[in-house]
Formats: sequence, C-alpha cells, structure tokens
Amino acid sequence: MANITKKVSWSSRGDDRGERTPLLNGAEDSKLNRQDIIRSRPKEIPHNEKLLSLKYESLDYDNSENQLFLEEERRMSQMGFRCLEITRWVICGLIGLLTGLIACLIDIAVENLAGLKYFAVKLNIEKFTELGGLSLSLILWAVLNSAFVMVGAIIVAFFEPIAAGSGIPQIKCYLNGVKVPRVVRLKTLVVKVFGVICSVAGGLAVGKEGPMIHSGAVVAAGVSQGRSTSLKKDFKMFEYFRRDTEKRDFVSAGAAAGVSAAFGAPVGGVLFSLEEGASFWNQLLTWRIFFASMVSSFTLNFFLSIYHQKPGELSSPGLINFGRFDSDSVQYNLYEIPLFIIMGALGGMLGALFNVLNYWLTIFRIRYIHRPCLQVMEAMLVAAVTATVSFAMIYFSTECQPLGPDHTEEYPLQLFCADGEYNAMATAFFNTPERSVRSLFHNPPGTYNPMTLGVFTLAYFLLAVWTYGLTVSAGVFIPSLLIGAAWGRLFGILLSFITTSKSIWADPGKYALIGAAAQLGGIVRMTLSLTVILVEATGNVTYGFPIMLVLMTAKIVGDYFVEGLYDIHIKLQSVPFLHWEAPPTSHWLTAREVMSSQVTCFNRIEKVGTIVDVLSNTSTNHNGFPVVTHVTEIDEPSKLCGLVLRSQLIVLLKHKVFVERASSRFSQRKLQLKDFRDAYPRFPPIQSIHVSQDERECMMDLTEFMNPTPYTVPQETSLPRVFKLFRALGLRHLVVVDNENRVVGLVTRKDLARYHLGKDGLEELQLAQT
Amino acid sequence: MANITKKVSWSSRGDDRGERTPLLNGAEDSKLNRQDIIRSRPKEIPHNEKLLSLKYESLDYDNSENQLFLEEERRMSQMGFRCLEITRWVICGLIGLLTGLIACLIDIAVENLAGLKYFAVKLNIEKFTELGGLSLSLILWAVLNSAFVMVGAIIVAFFEPIAAGSGIPQIKCYLNGVKVPRVVRLKTLVVKVFGVICSVAGGLAVGKEGPMIHSGAVVAAGVSQGRSTSLKKDFKMFEYFRRDTEKRDFVSAGAAAGVSAAFGAPVGGVLFSLEEGASFWNQLLTWRIFFASMVSSFTLNFFLSIYHQKPGELSSPGLINFGRFDSDSVQYNLYEIPLFIIMGALGGMLGALFNVLNYWLTIFRIRYIHRPCLQVMEAMLVAAVTATVSFAMIYFSTECQPLGPDHTEEYPLQLFCADGEYNAMATAFFNTPERSVRSLFHNPPGTYNPMTLGVFTLAYFLLAVWTYGLTVSAGVFIPSLLIGAAWGRLFGILLSFITTSKSIWADPGKYALIGAAAQLGGIVRMTLSLTVILVEATGNVTYGFPIMLVLMTAKIVGDYFVEGLYDIHIKLQSVPFLHWEAPPTSHWLTAREVMSSQVTCFNRIEKVGTIVDVLSNTSTNHNGFPVVTHVTEIDEPSKLCGLVLRSQLIVLLKHKVFVERASSRFSQRKLQLKDFRDAYPRFPPIQSIHVSQDERECMMDLTEFMNPTPYTVPQETSLPRVFKLFRALGLRHLVVVDNENRVVGLVTRKDLARYHLGKDGLEELQLAQT
Repeated sequence: MANITKKVSWSSRGDDRGERTPLLNGAEDSKLNRQDIIRSRPKEIPHNEKLLSLKYESLDYDNSENQLFLEEERRMSQMGFRCLEITRWVICGLIGLLTGLIACLIDIAVENLAGLKYFAVKLNIEKFTELGGLSLSLILWAVLNSAFVMVGAIIVAFFEPIAAGSGIPQIKCYLNGVKVPRVVRLKTLVVKVFGVICSVAGGLAVGKEGPMIHSGAVVAAGVSQGRSTSLKKDFKMFEYFRRDTEKRDFVSAGAAAGVSAAFGAPVGGVLFSLEEGASFWNQLLTWRIFFASMVSSFTLNFFLSIYHQKPGELSSPGLINFGRFDSDSVQYNLYEIPLFIIMGALGGMLGALFNVLNYWLTIFRIRYIHRPCLQVMEAMLVAAVTATVSFAMIYFSTECQPLGPDHTEEYPLQLFCADGEYNAMATAFFNTPERSVRSLFHNPPGTYNPMTLGVFTLAYFLLAVWTYGLTVSAGVFIPSLLIGAAWGRLFGILLSFITTSKSIWADPGKYALIGAAAQLGGIVRMTLSLTVILVEATGNVTYGFPIMLVLMTAKIVGDYFVEGLYDIHIKLQSVPFLHWEAPPTSHWLTAREVMSSQVTCFNRIEKVGTIVDVLSNTSTNHNGFPVVTHVTEIDEPSKLCGLVLRSQLIVLLKHKVFVERASSRFSQRKLQLKDFRDAYPRFPPIQSIHVSQDERECMMDLTEFMNPTPYTVPQETSLPRVFKLFRALGLRHLVVVDNENRVVGLVTRKDLARYHLGKDGLEELQLAQT
Repeated sequence: MANITKKVSWSSRGDDRGERTPLLNGAEDSKLNRQDIIRSRPKEIPHNEKLLSLKYESLDYDNSENQLFLEEERRMSQMGFRCLEITRWVICGLIGLLTGLIACLIDIAVENLAGLKYFAVKLNIEKFTELGGLSLSLILWAVLNSAFVMVGAIIVAFFEPIAAGSGIPQIKCYLNGVKVPRVVRLKTLVVKVFGVICSVAGGLAVGKEGPMIHSGAVVAAGVSQGRSTSLKKDFKMFEYFRRDTEKRDFVSAGAAAGVSAAFGAPVGGVLFSLEEGASFWNQLLTWRIFFASMVSSFTLNFFLSIYHQKPGELSSPGLINFGRFDSDSVQYNLYEIPLFIIMGALGGMLGALFNVLNYWLTIFRIRYIHRPCLQVMEAMLVAAVTATVSFAMIYFSTECQPLGPDHTEEYPLQLFCADGEYNAMATAFFNTPERSVRSLFHNPPGTYNPMTLGVFTLAYFLLAVWTYGLTVSAGVFIPSLLIGAAWGRLFGILLSFITTSKSIWADPGKYALIGAAAQLGGIVRMTLSLTVILVEATGNVTYGFPIMLVLMTAKIVGDYFVEGLYDIHIKLQSVPFLHWEAPPTSHWLTAREVMSSQVTCFNRIEKVGTIVDVLSNTSTNHNGFPVVTHVTEIDEPSKLCGLVLRSQLIVLLKHKVFVERASSRFSQRKLQLKDFRDAYPRFPPIQSIHVSQDERECMMDLTEFMNPTPYTVPQETSLPRVFKLFRALGLRHLVVVDNENRVVGLVTRKDLARYHLGKDGLEELQLAQT
C-alpha cells in the first residue's frame, strides 16, 4: 500500500533525474515525506509486479555518430586505434587488480573480526558452562552480532541504500541497459565493502561473494572513466571511454572479475557476465573480460598466499574455497544419475519455496519497513535471532564427536560433551558459512548425525529466507550452498542407511556438493555459468556432468513454480528489464501499437526558447528527440533527419552554442566531443542552466550534434522484430517512420518491457511514475 | 596461376547456384575442364587472398516476416510455442545422441583397425629383426598405411571434396552466415566419417577430433530438418524449423556436441560454438546448445564404457582422454609462471611457423595439385613417407627402456634392445597420436631421453605441416598437441638438468601439458574455449590458470606474425567472412560508397515476364530484390515497400501464383508457408521452371510474400554502423534508402567483407566470380 503511494509521491517531486534511489532490495529514500504518503494514498492497490516504472532511464549502447564523433574517428590513425585497444587491456588489468585487492581486504577483515568474535564467545561459554548461567553467553553473543550488524545496516540504510543486498539484480539491470541510479558510484563501493564485512562478521546467514560482483562493477566503472565525481578528481585519462557503450563493456569485465575473485573461477566469471548481461557477443570484448577475470583471481591468490604465509604456493584462487576433492574418491556411477536428478528436482522445489517466501517477505518489507531506522532495527533483530537460534541448537544438541588429533575445527566447543570430544552442532555455527560448507563437503563420513543436519537445514533455511533482502550488504550464494550441502549430506547419509554396499555410498561429501548445487541452482536459476563456477571452485572436472544435470533439473523444476530470486526482485522494483526475446505470442502487435506517438520533435535549426521549454517540461521528461526537416503543424509529421539526446542539448545550452553567437563572435571555440565527455555521465538538470530572455530568441543549429543516422522501423514492423533490433543493438530510442520517412512515433525500452507473458497469455504492464 | 584461371572458368558456367564445390582445403571440382583453364589464363596473377569470391551466398538469419509468416505466428497459441520449444530441446537431445554415437563408431573402428595394423607390423618386424631384411617390414608398413590412406583419399577426392580437412573452417563460415555448398549434407557426413577412420588408421599425423565438429554440424542440420534430400526421405517432422535461422541455431548445437564428444568437454563445446560462430547471444539458445553437448558427451561415455567392458563407470567422456592428472602432483609455483609465459611465446612462434609453412604449401596445392588423382597420390605419398620416417627413427634410435611389469605400452617393440627392454622411439610411433600424447603427459620422468624427443618433435612437426590440407578427412588438434607435448616435455627435462632442486621440476608431464597448450594455441589461436576444452580434457582445474596464460601469450605472439590456421584457410578460399567488427579506420566510408547501386527492384504487382528475365540473368544473379511502389524510369528511385528473395519468387513461379489465375479459378489452393518450407533449402534453378509465353504476360502480386519491413539505413550511415547492424542481426540484404524512403542501394555481405585492414591501412579486396 505504502509502496504505491510512495511511488506516486516520488514522481510529484519532479526532479528525479537519475539521482533518486531505486527500490531494489527494499532500500528506500530516507528523506521520504510521511505526509506525502498519507495525502495521496490511492483507493486501489494494483499488484506491485504489474507495474512498470517510468523512473528508470536507459543506457545507450548505440553510439551517437554525429559529425563531431565521425570527425574524431576519422582523424584517428590506425596506430591510434591500436593504442586505444591497448589502453582497454590496461584498464581491464587494473580492474582485475583492484577487484582482487578488495576481495583480499574483505577476506582478511572478515576472518579476523569473526575470529575475534568466536574466540570471545567461546571463552565465555567455556567459562559459564562450568559456572552455569549460559544465558549470559547467549546475550553476549547476540549483542556482539547485533552490534556488527547495526554498523553494517546503518551505513547502508542512511548513507547508500543501493548498496543493500548482493547487488547482483542491480548489475543485471545495468548490463541489461537500465540506468540504475548511483549503482556504480565510489560511495556505493565503500559502503558495500564495509557493509559486507560487518554483516558477515555479525554472523548473519549471508555470504561475502555476491557483493564482490557489485564491487567489481563499481571498480570497473570508476577506473575506466579515469575520474571520480564523488572525490571531484579528474585524472584526465581514458577520456575516450566516457560514454555508455564503453563503460558498459568495462562494467561487464568488472562483474566478471568480481565473480572470479569470489569463487576463484575466471571462466565462470566471463560466463556469468555473458549469461546475465551481454547481448552482442564480441570475441575481442570477451577476451578482455577474460583477462580481467584472470588478473583478479591471480591477485587475490597472490596476496592471500602471502597473508597465509605460504608465498608462492597460490592455493587460494577465490574467497570461497571448496577444498580439494580427491581424484580417487570423486568417481560417480551410472546408477547414481537418477539420484542426482531427484536431488536436482528437490533443489528446484526448495529453491522455489525459498523464492516464494522471500517474495512475500519483500512485499511486506516494501509496504511496512521502509524507514531507515526500522530497517536497521530489523537487521539487528535478525542478527540477535540468528545468534539465539544458533545458541539454542548448540545447547540442545547432544551430539558429541571425538576430537581427533588432526582436527580441522578452529573453535571446537566442548560444552556438555565429555573431555576430548566436541559439540558437533557448534562447529556448524561457530564458523563462517564458507568453512561450514567446506566441512560438509569434506569431513569424513560419520562426522554429522542425520538429526543434527535436518534441524540445521530447517533453521538455516528460514534464517536465510529472512535475511535476504535486509538492508545490509550481503550475498545469497553461500547460505544457499550451505543449506544445500546440509540436506545433500543428509540425503547421502540416508542413502547409505538404505543400501548395503558401503563402498559407493560411503562418501556423503559428494552428495553434499550435489545438494549445494541443486539448492543454489533452484534459487538463482543459472545453469551454464554456475556449472563452470562450481567446477572451478571444486577444482575438479569429474563432477561437471552431475552438476550440469542437477542445475538443469533444478532450473526446469523451479521455473515451473516461480521465477529466479534475482528476477523476482527486479520485477518487484518495476524495472523495465528486457528479456532475451519478445514474448512468443506478441506477433499480433506492431510498432504502431507499441510506440509512443505524439513525439516531441525539433527542427534542424530550432529556437532556444522552444528547446528550453521542452526540456523543462517535467510531465514528459523525454530524453531523445527526433530532429526533423521542418515542423509545420503539431499533428503533421515531418521527415526525419536525425536524433538528438537531452544530454547533448543540455551541453549545447550550457555552452550557449547559438547561431547568432557563432556569427557575431567568430573566434569562439568550437564545441568539441570533449565538452560532452566532461559532462558525462551526470549532465546538469535543465533547471540549473540559466537562459536569458534574449537568448531564448536565439536559434540553435543541431546539425552537427545530432545523430544523423538513427535506426528506424516502419509502422508495420511486428513487436518481435522491433524487440530483436532494439535488444541486439542495445538501443535507447528507435524512431518509427511512415513510408515517407516521416516521424510517427518513438519506441523506447519501457514500450517493449511493458508486454510480458502472464498466465493467461500476453499481459500489458501499467506504467507508473514510480 | 591455375587458381585464378580456374576461378574464372567456374564463373563462365553460369549455373553455380549453390551446388559447386568450394575451394576450402584445396579440394576442388573434379569435373573441371582442362581446356577452360588454358584458354582463359590471365596475364597478371593477383595474390589469392586479395580476392573476394562472389560465389558464396549468405544465409539469412533474419526471418522474412511476410504476411504468411505473421498469420502462422498469430494463429499459434501459447501452448503451440511451448510445444515448439520442447521440440527444440528434443532435437538437441537427438543431435547429442547421434553425434555421440558417431564418435563411438569412429573411436572403435580406429582402435581396431590401427590395432590390427600395429600388430601385423610388429609381428613382421620381430620376425625380420632376427632374420635380417627389415626393409621388407618397412615396405609392409608403408603399403599398409598407403592403402588405408588411399581409400580415405579416394572417397574424399572423388565423392565429396568438401569433406576434406577438419571441416572447422567450413563450419566457422557456416556459422558466420556464409552458405558453403554441400557442407551439411548426409553424403558429406558419410565420407567424413569413413575418411577420418582411414586416415587415422593409415598412420597419418592427424587426429580424429576436428572432424567430429563437422560431423556434429551435419547431424544437426539433418535432424533438425526432419528429412534428408540425399535419401529423398521426408519424415514430415520439424517442418517449422526449415529456414536458415532455426537451422543455423541447431548447427551451432551440433558443432558444440561435436567438440563435446571429441574432448569430453561439454562447456568447452558451448564456448567453441559461441566463440567461433554466434553473433547474438541468446540465453535460451545457449542452454539448448549446452544440453546437446551434455547428451553427446554422455552418450559417448556410456557406450564406450560398455565397449571397454566397464559399464557404469563412465570413464571415457571424450575421444581423447588426457588421463588423470593426480591432484597432489599438479601443483605449480609462482616462479614457474615466467616459464609458462616463455613457453607460450615459444608456442606462438612455432605455431606461426607452422601456419606460414602450411600457407605456402596450400598455395602450392591450389595451383598445382588440384586434380583428384594427384590429390590421392599426394596423400599416399605422405602416408608412405610418414611410415618411412617413423621406421627410420625407430631403426636408428638406440634408446632402450626397461619393460616394467606394469608397462602401459600396448605394442612394446624390442627391436635391437636387450631382452626385457623395448625401443622408446617405437612407442611414440606405434600408437595412435592420442595415446602418444597421453604417454608424454603421464609417463614417469626418465621415460624419454631428450634426444629422442627433439628428433621426434622436428620430424612430427614437418609431417604435420605437410599433412594438414591433404585431401583426407582429418584434424589438426591432436598433431598440434603431440608436437607441443613433445617439446614441452623436452623443455621440462632440460629444466630439471639446469636446476638442482629436483622436487619442483621433477614432473616433465606438467611441462608437456603446457607445451601442448602453447603449440595448439599458437596454431589455432583460440583462447577462452580452448582453455575450457583443455581443462575439461585434463579433468583438473588446477592447471586452468597456467593454460589460460599460455594460450593468451601464444595468441598475442602468434598474431604478431600471421593469422590463425583456420583464418588463413578461409582467406585463401576468398570467403566473404565477416569479422567481429568493421576495420577501425573505416569511419571514412559510408553506406553510399559501400552499397551496390542500380538495384534491380520489382513492383508490388509485377509482370511475370520481367521477373523471369531478371532471375534468368546470369550476369547479375541477385538473390534479394527490393519491392517498390512503382518503378517509373530505370534511374528514378521509388519508395521501398518490401523485400523479396529469389527463393520466394522461384516458389511463386513454380506454383504459378498469378493474379489472373487467382480470379479465374477461385477454388485454387492458397499458397502456404509449407510450400516454401518444402522447397527449402534447395530451391530449383530458374531454368528448370517453364513459363509459357502466355504466362509471361500475367501479373504476380508480391504483397503477401515479400517482407514488408526490411531493415534500412540512410545513405550517410558510416560503415561501422552498417556493419554492426548487419552482423548483429545476421542480415543478408540491407536496403539503403534516401530521406524520401526511396531505394538507392543494397548492401550485402560481400560489400562489407570487401574492406579489410591491411598493412598500410584499409584495403579493398577485388571481387571475382570464383
């Protein structure tokens, strides 16, 4: 309810030009006026995901090939292009390096903070186990957790709400061509990094891997532009790359570098970037992305090896290390394949359940928990509950395991066990989730008893559902893997009870791995990239085939119930996301029905006043304007001769490039591409540009600055055809013309994203100024 | 010299509509008239790769969305689309299954034939070692080899020359959108499969892996169409998929399945398909390709496991098996990385040398060895020489190795060695190349002495250069790997001489692997897909990073000297291949300069006689015709209203869809999409369609059949922009219009492929009717 009204209230501000915070992950604008909400509460509440936000702008993957651009390109020699290419490689190297270093920082900080915390709690518990009064230990634990999480939640909720969550949905949107405001800013990166350290150290059911992808993307966006607007520092480097096309390519590389550092999976990173983002596959671009991935994984490996005092060994290619699966024990057999398929289906169902629960929770959050202080309190509550649940489970667990001489547990907790034994449940909770996953994969058979695993699965599942979407910076990969590994191992143990031939079923670690894959696949629904990521993380190809099989099954089963987690969150935010293809039954529609007609056009030589008035019109807020030969009447279409962007007009107005001035002051410097690049990407709003009454009467010649060859389609073109052109070329505006080449309409992203395949066939989403 | 004249002679036939044999791999039309050659020999011989053939047609990745098509799509329900999607998956499964079975067949046949041969030769040698007169053994060996190769060469040279070589360049061209005649026919598949069995069994320095990619592609093209024109059998299935768009998607899947079966690398297969072929990355398509790959590898694994009498163990995922690299021994150290880079550079240089030598040889072959009988003789000669060289090296090799109790050699040859020892050189030659590669990777240190390896590398390198491009069906992957493994192992052995600390350098197998990667990368210049293929083939991810590094280095170093082997062969055949991007310095050019002007247009309602005359004009041989409102004068452009293809017009003429007939015989069946599909892909030539003098006066209404919304660009569009549109959408024809929407030109593949970046900047290739 508040959701809709809030969205309405946003639009009434009229100045939301790319600077508003989107709703992704339930993070919201903190300065929201409460009264606005109450005032404009509508009667009917349309379902949230049936809306399409008009708030999000598009990125432009299509270069504006105006005269300035062509002149620059033509001036450049072959050597110049080669230098540019080398520069791109250098930038990709830098992206990899910095992403790797950030991953290092996160890893070391988390290890140390969590280590300190566990040490303190363990000492405390050991003290009170003898004395009695373990409730004090619980309180200590809960308070420590909440404190960490509070810090993490506060910086996210109050300083940069976009940094909440894993950032993967946002990066998906960005790579899809949606301009998500503030998503690739330095401030976002800083909040993200410290946020994730706090939330992982705070013992939440989260991972530090997802945020790496976002971090890599921010690094890429920053490095490739050679400046930081937040720091107000321009290094005067890489100016050529200051446009959406190039930036988006680098952001792909950054996301790949992030995956690569997180999982030690360079190839997986490349595939992630392509599967989630790319439209046009370009071999050269792919190789650069691959290079960034390699460098990132290597950097992390190099520095972590030094940190772990094994320099030169290069044994930590990623943040998460699944440990070495020994080649001899990793065989699988033909008759295990049906079992894997069953596990895949189970993973798909559990994943769908996870997604549905989280979907309801997110709707609840959007409606009721949208004030930052409430958000912080919820995060603290979850932290405290997590600690309590853990504590209760450890407390009530009666399972004791002998403490071997070469035990791998870092914090074995004796509790009520006999001397020389430790509490098995405690190892699951007294560990960062990454370590728990590894124990589930590798601990010898018999380490865990089935009861423990069952209860743990249930508890952790619920905690993870609750945790994802909190206003903290954290990822869902590791909790998913952990849940899956737990029930997978349980599955393996149960199997070994049923069957007699111990030899084959002896390794529950194998089933833990398969379960982890199934659960993760069921939640996020990736196949190809996830297969490679998991194979690279296990370091062994033998399980490649089962993992593929399981991920495919999980995806098919899961898709039957509900979409993937990221897609759900994207949809809940009403982002105009373009899928791979137009809905299959959309051949009925043509460009005529889809386009926005009554397009605002400009003349080739236009009066400044008109331009200013159009740009200042907050009710339309258009970003691209077809340039026509001569507008006679308002309803009479004219011949198309180009396309000019709002951003270009703003720069022209700012520099007062008027026809009258050019002739009067002949010596005036000609406007260059550099002026546009300097203003990119945060072009000033029209309100900040002062145009005097005299100047309003001047004329502006757009010929040199407009894109003279915009892509066009005739009115009869079918929607799938328009969609294909739009998506394959990454367009922002597509002009619809009649057979006289006269402008009759304009297709933008929201016109295409509006149509979607519902349960009863093609549905049209409502557009809202959210 | 003969090359050019032959090309000229081809064009003079005038009937080369997609049925001629292309020149790929030096295979040529056997029915070439000798006199034509002599008659038309030109004075000047332009360099071969500076030509662009007009012979190759394009595939059309852009659906012709005419009324028939739209009506069909609109009639289809959502359920219908879902069924189609399921059918696509089923077809991909079938493709995988059949490709896997073919791989099985090849493997088993080669194993048995080669086994028989080695057994016979070994017996013979053993007999004559004692008796003296080993020259008789040599003759037996040479004759056996030549006999096998003769059979292989004859079927290729006389029955299906396109089946020569690995087929990878042809598949690359096909996926790029070039219609290479006969490349995906059943006959080609049969010749390919038996050809590769013969050439591998004949002991040539070839592998059976490359041809699998071609085989998979043919299987895909066949299965997806639900019929075989060669067998004249139509199963009436999958009729919806009878068009270029769908077929090309399936061929991608087939190629991936081929790689997957060859190397046991399902992910590598997908990446190969994408890296070499795809333009628009579509997630759904990728998943289907992935599925085909999985099924293919699994099928092979399943049946080979049964064949090897280890059912259920699934230990042979690919034709080549690199053997298990043990996890403990596969560590590498930081200071080995510079060594890897050096090896990569070495591989790049050796690869470039290989390519240059093969380039010269291919030019020689194109000029002088173009008659089938000469080609067969050359192949036999190479087979005999290979046997002789092998024999000589075995004979002169004095290196004896003790025959351990658990020796892995299948055919240990004692020769002049003491009892209980065997000749080391013989193991390298008395093996299929796959086994030799495996021995080089895994045999314990000390198995080979450096001298043996050095001589072997040199001999095998020269043999492989000579062999690639012969008129036999064979691949270059395995010989490359073998050469690389040999010098890599040598490198490792030499290193262990230099250094003292034996522990690290002790494993020359590791260097063999790196060398193999370097050499293969230096020759074929793939990076991402090859990394994944090699990692999947070794079954261990640990070497992922070094392999990447080596492949990158090899590519960069190799590209400095010369292009990759496949690209060289594509260029030598003057194929209008479109690279990923337009040449960087081509912003000078616009559509106006690039397009073919004086376009032949048709009226919306056109006289049959005019259409027949235009189609029969062999001097132009156009394939796409803009349809315009009304052609008044020949030089006056008219407004575009559609695009019609030659194939569509042929079908219309065949069914006599004339305006007069429609009105006179009202009951006449309306032409349906099915009629076009039935004729696909081998539309009859215009000469075969009889049009009477009366009918010539009839009129034809094209409205229903033309594509009413072809993509257009204005004349001022820059070449890179045109290129991007063309490549991203996989177009065949792009209409250039003026600002009144009147047709002024047509851009086709050859117009774009013509511009290429030479040493002195942009070059324009000559067009030739080759």
